[in-house]
This record gives sequence, structure tokens and C-alpha cells, in this order.
Amino acid sequence: MLAYGELLAFERMAHDTRLAPDLTRRARLSQMAGAEIANYGLIAARLAELGVDPALAMAPFVPALSAYHEQTTPCDWLEALVKAYVGDSIADDFFREIAQYLDPVDRQLVFQVVHDARYAQFAAMEIRAAIADDPKLRDRLSIWARRLVGEGVTQAQRVAAQRPALAGLLALAPAESDPSVHVSAVEQPAATNGVLTLLSRLTAAHTARMAAVGLNN
Amino acid sequence: MLAYGELLAFERMAHDTRLAPDLTRRARLSQMAGAEIANYGLIAARLAELGVDPALAMAPFVPALSAYHEQTTPCDWLEALVKAYVGDSIADDFFREIAQYLDPVDRQLVFQVVHDARYAQFAAMEIRAAIADDPKLRDRLSIWARRLVGEGVTQAQRVAAQRPALAGLLALAPAESDPSVHVSAVEQPAATNGVLTLLSRLTAAHTARMAAVGLNN
Repeated sequence: MLAYGELLAFERMAHDTRLAPDLTRRARLSQMAGAEIANYGLIAARLAELGVDPALAMAPFVPALSAYHEQTTPCDWLEALVKAYVGDSIADDFFREIAQYLDPVDRQLVFQVVHDARYAQFAAMEIRAAIADDPKLRDRLSIWARRLVGEGVTQAQRVAAQRPALAGLLALAPAESDPSVHVSAVEQPAATNGVLTLLSRLTAAHTARMAAVGLNN
Repeated sequence: MLAYGELLAFERMAHDTRLAPDLTRRARLSQMAGAEIANYGLIAARLAELGVDPALAMAPFVPALSAYHEQTTPCDWLEALVKAYVGDSIADDFFREIAQYLDPVDRQLVFQVVHDARYAQFAAMEIRAAIADDPKLRDRLSIWARRLVGEGVTQAQRVAAQRPALAGLLALAPAESDPSVHVSAVEQPAATNGVLTLLSRLTAAHTARMAAVGLNN
């Protein structure tokens, strides 16, 4: 899933370079895309080491991840940056959470390939500057960000329903007491509660990122 | 020129991944594109070291190189591979020739970034296999290759006319006796003769590459 995520992130970012307002930013986004495909190479190499054909391993995730990107094609440079900032960051948080339940080699690999913070910083800086320059952008980009999250959740549910093994990994997440989870812990089996606390952590991080660039959640 | 060439090669290859017949080939072309943008990074870093803004340095080459790619958008996977194999190889040969007249640091950099032979080998293998499978492809792909060369020459002339300094570098190429050059050496100034022998070397290498994959020159 992460391998195909990287491959698609590469293709989408490379495609979005056409939206860049100047050559410097175009090159910058291209280099961000280059980091994604380098990461893909690391995961594909690990899959091959495990005796798995990367194409076969990725195949089950093609429909959901492709659908996410088809449903969220940015129309301009700022939408592309918000997508990279909001969408990729949630995906990264998710993979970091999952990685805790993998063996040490795979865990390190996941930590290595989830995005470099400086790319999120570049996107955040551009978004903040654009909103400062034209405050009307705030509403439009906030709606766009919410659409990205909605589409991401839809496709994540699709993957979880089709991949019980992946959902099972999530069920290993330890349950935590968290007041932002509006379900009484005693009424839930431990596994479900673990998923809920994970979702609540992902949501909290997302909310903080939105606020950091001046977008409304 | 090489920096913008790498940036455009990256974007074009990344865009052409949509033509790949399967996920394995799609990932392979994506990784080829990744190598281009990594090379771009090396050249941009060297330009910055020389105190030059990469965007400003690339700007003069945007029209010609963009026009080349706009005029030669592949319609299918094999056209994309022939373009990578034929077009990029000629460009690489050209940059290798030019590099001889640069200082040692820049010469090494150019040698480092011109394409890895294994990418040409991958493209060549795919083209040969496709022609073996369907001999009718030979004519169509041969015509396509000639169109690539024609468009490349057109845009190269445009660059040379606008960039006397670059044309001047070429004029440093030593004149050689070469029977395939149909101009009497004694009738030409040495500089022009140098350019002609360079063109003849580029042409000879191109002809050999075409023959190697079964295309007609």
C-alpha cells in the first residue's frame, strides 16, 4: 500500500508541476516527486528481498488509491500544495502508526520513507503566504482540504473492508483514554477502541496542521 | 540547457507512465524519471555554487526544449520508449561532446548526469521485443524516430542561433577527416568543420542505435 502510495504520489506531483507559477517552484515540486519515487524504490527492493513481486503486492491497492487521486485532481498550484500538505501528511501519520506493529526492519523502512518534514514546510509556507496575500483564499482552500479528507476516509474504509489483515494490524493499536473520542470505552471491545484512539490521534494532528496554515477545519 | 533538459525529461517521462501496459513497467519508467530529477538537482546545486539562479539560467532554453516535447508527445508506450531511446541518447551524446570543452569540475558533472546506459538498454530491449512480436511496428516506429530527430534538429538550430556562446563552444571541436561528411574540408573554416565532424559523430552513433533495435534510418 505504501509502495503504491509513493508511486502515485510521484506521478501526481510530477503531473501537478504544470500548475507551478514559475520555474523555481516547478523544479521544487519535481524534486519533491523525485523523493517519492526514490522511496518507492526502497520499498520495492524490500518487497523483492521478501520474495514478493512489487506489482503483485501493489495490485490490491490500485483501485482505492487511484480513485482518491482521480477524485481530488487539483485545479491550481495552491490546491496542489494543500493536497500535498493535508493529504500526504495524514497518510504519513497513518503509516507511522501502522509501522509500530511491524518488525524492526520494516518499521525503520516506513519511518525512512514517510515524507521529509521540509516538504510539508515548503507547502505550508506557500499556503500561508498566499492566504496572507488574498484572505478570500482561506474559504476556498478550507473547503478543498475538507474534500480531500472526506475522499481519503472513503477510500481508507474501502481498503479496510477489503483487507482484513491490514485492519487487524490496526486493531493491535493500544486503547487510550481520550476525551475527544465520543464513544464510551467500556462499551467498545478493546480492538475497536484502539482504532478509535488512532483515528482521534490522526484527527488531532490534522486539525493542528490546518490551523498552522490558517485553514478552517 | 542540461538542467532544463533534465527537468523536462523528468516531467515528460513521469507523464508518459500513464502509457505503460502494466504496473512493473509503469514503476520502471517512473524510476527512470526519478533519475532525471536527481540529476537536475546536481546541476542546480552546481549553478547555485557558481552564484547563478537555476531558474534564470534555464529560462533562455525553455522555448526550444518545450517546443521539442510539445511537438513530440508520444501516443503509446512504444513511442514513449523510442523517444527516450532515440531522443535522449542524441542529447546525451551532444552533452558529452560539449563537456570536453568545459573545465574539469563541470565536465565530470556532465558525464555523471548524462543517462545511465541501463535505461537505454531497457528501452532497447522493449522495442526489439515489440518489433519481433509484430513486425509491422517497424515502419511506424521508424517514421516516429525520424520525426523525433527532425524536430530535435529544428530546435537545436533555434538554440544555436540564439546562443552564440554555446555555438562558440561547439566551434572548438577539433576538425577531423571523416568520409561521411559531404563537404570538402579545405573549403570550410576550421570551426565549421569542427561542427560538421561533431554532427557526423552524432549521426553515426544515432544510426548505430537505430539499427541495434531494428529501426530503419
